[in-house]
Amino acid sequence: MIKASIIGATGYSGVVLAGILSSHKDVEIVSLTSQSYKGQYYSDIYKNFKGVLDIKLEEENIDEISKKSDVIFLALPHGIASKKITQDVLKQAKVIDLGADFRLKNITTYQAWYNTQHFGENLLNKAIYGLPEWNKEQIKTACLVANPGCYATASILTVAPLLKEGVIHSDDIIIDAKSGVSGAGRGLSIDTHFCECNETIKAYKVATHRHTPEIEQVLSDISGNNVLLNFTPHLVPMNRGILISAYLNSKKDISIDELKQVYKKYYLDKPFVRLFDDVVQTRWTKGTNYCDISVFKDERTGRIIAFGAIDNLYKGASGQAVQNMNIMFGLDEKTSLQNTAVFP
Amino acid sequence: MIKASIIGATGYSGVVLAGILSSHKDVEIVSLTSQSYKGQYYSDIYKNFKGVLDIKLEEENIDEISKKSDVIFLALPHGIASKKITQDVLKQAKVIDLGADFRLKNITTYQAWYNTQHFGENLLNKAIYGLPEWNKEQIKTACLVANPGCYATASILTVAPLLKEGVIHSDDIIIDAKSGVSGAGRGLSIDTHFCECNETIKAYKVATHRHTPEIEQVLSDISGNNVLLNFTPHLVPMNRGILISAYLNSKKDISIDELKQVYKKYYLDKPFVRLFDDVVQTRWTKGTNYCDISVFKDERTGRIIAFGAIDNLYKGASGQAVQNMNIMFGLDEKTSLQNTAVFP
Amino acid sequence: MIKASIIGATGYSGVVLAGILSSHKDVEIVSLTSQSYKGQYYSDIYKNFKGVLDIKLEEENIDEISKKSDVIFLALPHGIASKKITQDVLKQAKVIDLGADFRLKNITTYQAWYNTQHFGENLLNKAIYGLPEWNKEQIKTACLVANPGCYATASILTVAPLLKEGVIHSDDIIIDAKSGVSGAGRGLSIDTHFCECNETIKAYKVATHRHTPEIEQVLSDISGNNVLLNFTPHLVPMNRGILISAYLNSKKDISIDELKQVYKKYYLDKPFVRLFDDVVQTRWTKGTNYCDISVFKDERTGRIIAFGAIDNLYKGASGQAVQNMNIMFGLDEKTSLQNTAVFP
Amino acid sequence: MIKASIIGATGYSGVVLAGILSSHKDVEIVSLTSQSYKGQYYSDIYKNFKGVLDIKLEEENIDEISKKSDVIFLALPHGIASKKITQDVLKQAKVIDLGADFRLKNITTYQAWYNTQHFGENLLNKAIYGLPEWNKEQIKTACLVANPGCYATASILTVAPLLKEGVIHSDDIIIDAKSGVSGAGRGLSIDTHFCECNETIKAYKVATHRHTPEIEQVLSDISGNNVLLNFTPHLVPMNRGILISAYLNSKKDISIDELKQVYKKYYLDKPFVRLFDDVVQTRWTKGTNYCDISVFKDERTGRIIAFGAIDNLYKGASGQAVQNMNIMFGLDEKTSLQNTAVFP
Repeated sequence: MIKASIIGATGYSGVVLAGILSSHKDVEIVSLTSQSYKGQYYSDIYKNFKGVLDIKLEEENIDEISKKSDVIFLALPHGIASKKITQDVLKQAKVIDLGADFRLKNITTYQAWYNTQHFGENLLNKAIYGLPEWNKEQIKTACLVANPGCYATASILTVAPLLKEGVIHSDDIIIDAKSGVSGAGRGLSIDTHFCECNETIKAYKVATHRHTPEIEQVLSDISGNNVLLNFTPHLVPMNRGILISAYLNSKKDISIDELKQVYKKYYLDKPFVRLFDDVVQTRWTKGTNYCDISVFKDERTGRIIAFGAIDNLYKGASGQAVQNMNIMFGLDEKTSLQNTAVFP
Repeated sequence: MIKASIIGATGYSGVVLAGILSSHKDVEIVSLTSQSYKGQYYSDIYKNFKGVLDIKLEEENIDEISKKSDVIFLALPHGIASKKITQDVLKQAKVIDLGADFRLKNITTYQAWYNTQHFGENLLNKAIYGLPEWNKEQIKTACLVANPGCYATASILTVAPLLKEGVIHSDDIIIDAKSGVSGAGRGLSIDTHFCECNETIKAYKVATHRHTPEIEQVLSDISGNNVLLNFTPHLVPMNRGILISAYLNSKKDISIDELKQVYKKYYLDKPFVRLFDDVVQTRWTKGTNYCDISVFKDERTGRIIAFGAIDNLYKGASGQAVQNMNIMFGLDEKTSLQNTAVFP
Repeated sequence: MIKASIIGATGYSGVVLAGILSSHKDVEIVSLTSQSYKGQYYSDIYKNFKGVLDIKLEEENIDEISKKSDVIFLALPHGIASKKITQDVLKQAKVIDLGADFRLKNITTYQAWYNTQHFGENLLNKAIYGLPEWNKEQIKTACLVANPGCYATASILTVAPLLKEGVIHSDDIIIDAKSGVSGAGRGLSIDTHFCECNETIKAYKVATHRHTPEIEQVLSDISGNNVLLNFTPHLVPMNRGILISAYLNSKKDISIDELKQVYKKYYLDKPFVRLFDDVVQTRWTKGTNYCDISVFKDERTGRIIAFGAIDNLYKGASGQAVQNMNIMFGLDEKTSLQNTAVFP
Repeated sequence: MIKASIIGATGYSGVVLAGILSSHKDVEIVSLTSQSYKGQYYSDIYKNFKGVLDIKLEEENIDEISKKSDVIFLALPHGIASKKITQDVLKQAKVIDLGADFRLKNITTYQAWYNTQHFGENLLNKAIYGLPEWNKEQIKTACLVANPGCYATASILTVAPLLKEGVIHSDDIIIDAKSGVSGAGRGLSIDTHFCECNETIKAYKVATHRHTPEIEQVLSDISGNNVLLNFTPHLVPMNRGILISAYLNSKKDISIDELKQVYKKYYLDKPFVRLFDDVVQTRWTKGTNYCDISVFKDERTGRIIAFGAIDNLYKGASGQAVQNMNIMFGLDEKTSLQNTAVFP
């Protein structure tokens, strides 16, 4: 059994992660920590865990925890993981960071977009970006995985094949993204008050969302071209789910069938990407590790429109983290991640 | 492996059942039928099943299906199952009927409340009411199980211990019930149009809901007293979940601690009933087979208030059906039903 | 023009009040105050007021404000109004308090349920309970009106006729109440986080909600009997609306037609009470000052079931406050309150 | 008083229109018609109208109705109005058609996109496109107004100033649109079943939505250039509201301040367009005739991003229809349309 701990178990990524790990056939949870709720029972905070995970939340002591764990998941606000993860910790346990601290390779970019200092520069080159559909080999031997952002996961998976294959211009990409409210986390703010986000839709962080440089970096790496894009997130009155609508400019004339072939080439053997002919919706991915994708061509304008749907907390965070763990520990990447979306 | 078939696989009970069975470790799905969608792929109707259950929907031919099945689940509108289930079918396969046709023992009561004829009177005495928390022994050897109604499940589980123990009057029970919209099924009606049930709450079928005689019959059986109650369902703008608020009159003075002891006496060994000190909510049961219960006493009026929360399509329908199947086939009743509510 | 001010204009009662007053044909808004947002433009806090009410929020100085106002509305947390409203203020302006401080006549009851001191005992006997359907004459000459609580408004209007007419027992009343999330106010709390109250239903404050003694006091006053009741509020995932389901025990046999006659007797001439034969729902009252009521009889048990639906922030707070103002200033009580529920 | 009739009063546009007209100070409703509900009371179909508009729904007889009406509003599915509106009707009454039949000037385009015949070709040249912010003079003297589509209204208002001013390329416009469910109408379909559209988001009619040629035609007319655009609608789990996110390519370098000046130039004197510095959201326009707009520039990519929010049934349909009526009858265009969004 893999001994696993979660640092920051009471945020939304933490609780989804706890759910997956508690039913993972090869995992034993050894420690859950929480700043705000230490000393309390996990099942008193999240009552769905009553009778399932009735353990006490511990103080965050990553050094101690690393000694009794094979893998540590960090689900913390940005700027904290880069302090907590040290060479010593990495000697004891593999680390999967669900936060943003080890995703961007360029520390100047990180500090510009995140407006905070980075304390773990010496470990940056060890961190592997944990998007298994494009990076599985490197993840296998990683000791530190930077788990992708939710928007980044959906955006990269949706756009990458066309870029990699040279079908589209790399500097004329528009991503209009829509997310459920859980993406904003469990912290209290007027923006997540029920009455303020129910029955309305709006954009936010226009041209300034922090997943933008992450998407650009990874897509540039994949395609070998410098990617520049517009990214605009919107808040949708629902709990879970991200839908990406990508507007892409083809370099040459390409038919819809050829477009679909490109996606098949890269994803037919990927267990968590499903290709659809019709529009996708977030519903069918809810509570699963799937990314559902479909591609269209507007014959009038020639533009390509691609859609990607994920569960922001599953494939966009905790499910993908476990997928990475599976790969890092030599398990089948699908292990204990094969549930079907609960509907209705 | 238990060979299982679902007659009526494309309704909401059917799809939840298909989800549970498709990941059940001891079950192989042999046939899914649908009147409306026969010939189509299941995963084209419910896209969450893409890559999970890509089989074709068959015509409903229960005789044929019974020959290749160990168990048949019927998820049909009332009045149909009583025609389809015959002695011949029961010779071939065990049957679990998720509909109402075999729940009421008194055929006159059935015809009065359901306003339709009953065609299976000769089988009524074979049908076992499938509420395992109160009826497990009989279910073990049943060939035909009448799976309880959703409201009935929550109501009976919430009220039964106090009645059985003689704590409350059996003729002064008020059940105010609240259900998500999936309880109304997938059929089209103006009442389930998004704009008509979103952002509003209302009661419906006041004093006339068909689960009323079912609850009364089963509670009378359990308690040995003639139970008479008011049942009032309300429609809540959410997909899933039933909450029962029961207002009960105690026969004698009883403390809140004694009340909780009564519930513990009957439920502490029941894997799918969880007792809480605080109010319960439907959220923590969503997508699970749990019934969460808590009891309160209004010290000013002396009245007892008990709450029960379930997922109407899980413990209130398909989860319970699989729990019954597990028992009928000698499996641990928890088999493949131990998931945790997905939250948020 | 009536010069009106709102103390506490940025809570949900405040903003609905500002909306009504800003389009009231006989009212001029002279001052809006806010503790949290003073100095800011109202239309920057609530952008629906852009171009409608672009005035600056002032510091709360009730003495100054009373000098320039004909009427002051207070929309403050309990315990504050009883300090702010003084004899001096009442000499300058009429006051309508949307909070709880002047509703309960018995100061001991107030302090027991609200767990705070009362600072305005000397003014309690001046305060008139502002439920115009039952108290219009007294409101006409009041200088201080205690505007009813939201749950209290719906509960009293729904139950009062049957009590007044002696149809039902006064000590065997059960009120199961359901409210949208705006009833919890705009303050931040995990209970009103979108993800925590969306897609779920639960009871809260079982047997302890502070509107209980208010309902009992007013119903006792109306009926001349000592009323004792169970009140249980539930939180519904919607912004607005309260539905009351009242379970009542008749003293004698009474037909459904006679029951409807009782309601007609008291409400046929009341412009804001509408009687329906079918179930009512909160939707049809949204954004209006109506209380929609219907009554049923369960012929099997003999029990009476009455439903009342209001908009918690309109008839349950700010609409009723303006109705009271209209009456206090000799206007038709319907003035500028005759809008129709926006649907869908 | 203007005598007004509504043909098709029981759809969602019809009911919002009935609400506005019933409180319009210069209008008297003379006739409401309905195919499905003729003979029934309007307030039995829409209970919010109880005590407000208790009149009977008539059979659709436009010739009869035109004789007793000054203005007729048609709120019908496409393909029907072009049959019903004749020269004879137009001699009797002014007509405002909320449907699509008279919006497109090119009948071939109409028949290609709407897949139906057009029966009123001879009247096409009389029809004035009723977008008062760009077309007020023509509307003043129109006898037949084609009321704009909901998506078209928001899209055109959001993009037109930049096109008219020559700031952006006319053939590289991307509009990502999001709409509440009421946009799909009141007709029954699995897509508008509560459980099927709640808690999910998806695109629909990708590259094929019928408002596309309408937006292109009107923007081409306004700008004098041939406009070609991508239009992608999405379905959002809420009742009301449309948000347009427009991605635009500037011809030359232009600062954000200059961009805002362009909008001010065209809209500062328009009573129903409000310009914001921050993102807009549909909430603040709900139940109002406002179109709220804000514009941003992505300094990294140079792209312009403009947002427009409306209530799809108000400014996107019935509110705008009444605005047109006001103009056609010489009233102030704001008459009886100056309500504020009800919030929360």
